[in-house]
Amino acid sequence: MKAIVFDNVLKLDTNYDKPVPKEGEALIHVKLAGICNTDFEITKGYMGYKGILGHEFVGIVENVNSQNAEDKKWIGKRVVAEISYGCNNPECEWCAKKNYRHCPNRHTLGIWKKDGCFAEYMTMPVNVLFEVPENVSDEQAVFVEPLAAACEITEQLHIEPMQKVLVLGDGKLGLTTALTLNAQNIDVLLVGKHKNKLDIASAQGVKTALLQNFNIEKKYDIVIEATGTAGGFETSIALTKPRGTLVLKSTVATGKELNLAPIVIDEITVLGSRCGQFPPALRLLENNRIDFSPMISGTYSIDDAIKAFEANKSKETIKILLKI
Amino acid sequence: MKAIVFDNVLKLDTNYDKPVPKEGEALIHVKLAGICNTDFEITKGYMGYKGILGHEFVGIVENVNSQNAEDKKWIGKRVVAEISYGCNNPECEWCAKKNYRHCPNRHTLGIWKKDGCFAEYMTMPVNVLFEVPENVSDEQAVFVEPLAAACEITEQLHIEPMQKVLVLGDGKLGLTTALTLNAQNIDVLLVGKHKNKLDIASAQGVKTALLQNFNIEKKYDIVIEATGTAGGFETSIALTKPRGTLVLKSTVATGKELNLAPIVIDEITVLGSRCGQFPPALRLLENNRIDFSPMISGTYSIDDAIKAFEANKSKETIKILLKI
Repeated sequence: MKAIVFDNVLKLDTNYDKPVPKEGEALIHVKLAGICNTDFEITKGYMGYKGILGHEFVGIVENVNSQNAEDKKWIGKRVVAEISYGCNNPECEWCAKKNYRHCPNRHTLGIWKKDGCFAEYMTMPVNVLFEVPENVSDEQAVFVEPLAAACEITEQLHIEPMQKVLVLGDGKLGLTTALTLNAQNIDVLLVGKHKNKLDIASAQGVKTALLQNFNIEKKYDIVIEATGTAGGFETSIALTKPRGTLVLKSTVATGKELNLAPIVIDEITVLGSRCGQFPPALRLLENNRIDFSPMISGTYSIDDAIKAFEANKSKETIKILLKI
Repeated sequence: MKAIVFDNVLKLDTNYDKPVPKEGEALIHVKLAGICNTDFEITKGYMGYKGILGHEFVGIVENVNSQNAEDKKWIGKRVVAEISYGCNNPECEWCAKKNYRHCPNRHTLGIWKKDGCFAEYMTMPVNVLFEVPENVSDEQAVFVEPLAAACEITEQLHIEPMQKVLVLGDGKLGLTTALTLNAQNIDVLLVGKHKNKLDIASAQGVKTALLQNFNIEKKYDIVIEATGTAGGFETSIALTKPRGTLVLKSTVATGKELNLAPIVIDEITVLGSRCGQFPPALRLLENNRIDFSPMISGTYSIDDAIKAFEANKSKETIKILLKI
């Protein structure tokens, strides 16, 4: 089968072995996938991962390998999947809570010990599959994973109705985060450098401001760092009120000395936030609370995936999709 | 009067002007003071502070300048004082909550815009004074400020009875923190490099372990970084369970690249924690829950303060006191 593989170099392999589902797994025919910045980071060495890339997808279950007859119901369903699955060892406290995201022996689609979704076929355990509601198009459903990651913030943090929230960064992460918080009736301001990107959020009701014209003051109860840069981290600290919370949504680029003293002096809480659960994200999609179509900068065939990765590097690009 | 002044160099000034209390302030005759690492950092440029150093003290109120007759009751009392006082502007949200520690226009004793306590006399507003209970000696009472800073952790964070807490670092900050949490019946383990220092904590019931023999595993719900080093920060992250909390109790030395990616991947909360309120600290002292005397490495006359600062640099030293 065709697959986009990273093995020190990124390449289209047209003869990759079709995967065979293990017990409890579904074989999924991938229809549409999305390129995430994490995929790009992996091509620069992040996580030391080698294999098929990709973790954002929509597909159709073609087969299920399970001794449990119930699991066969998935065959033919249009699905998405949470990207981490656990060891399910009865002694694993994380798997006992079904929080596979933190199982120390987890596998993570296209990131850690598990071939990803940039391929004609993939497998995932049925216990992390979710059916896509009928009224949600593939082009919206393919955003469910980053949308779930944005929903993670309100799983971790109680945001009070009168609190002021600022999202810093207008790339796909910042846009998705601001749209998601806004869809939950939270008072959110998106600050970024690109008017055309901010306009996508403001068209859906998000308050926005250009960083160039913005007064940096310590007055936000909650600041969400979505730039992924060391400079963005420091600006985020400078925007957070004493005793406020700074949510780190992306792995901040290292290679710069970070001054953590203001965190102690202002007693700031820095909250790391990663992947989220899919049900709240699917509810937002089913109820049309967010429209992701203005974020799609291009859709490429899997045959042109290398070009798609190139296009993803441009500052103008928001989301690139791969048609499988 | 005699005063220990930092003005690019540290010196004993024997002819410093005796301070005059402003309206609402007490004039305090200082009896005993403690050297904190912050004092030492200031002599290296921290906060850009110049003036009389010192913020840990016990003294006797000699006079009060106040139109409010009630305030005169402080005269003759043996007191300690919270180190920050606010603007008391009716529009200041922090002063309205009496949380002067975060007032943006605060003054902080010996650290920010306010002469400190390493002098024969000092002034402080009466609204930040606390009387020392009769059964508490000067040698214990002089520890109330760092003790309050340790109590700050349980003001900011709900520590559940079954949670595992680890304090990293066995200097005065780590020892005080471990003893304080232990005195609140919290399950705490102190990890450090110095057997003689760990023994001080274990003699008072704290579980301890030598870092050299310690297995670094991500299994602590709450880790308190009390080394003040970039290496200690990274070890603390490596000890914190996914979704756990890392409390930053000291301003981590900069000058090293810090990798924040594990904070996002493990969804760790980093909580900056600074000064605390005095009442819970005074309760611990009044009830003899902690004995600070084994932490006193030496007591110097104010005339020998420069020697005292030198002694404070030694790795063997824990707490140095100044007899005024």
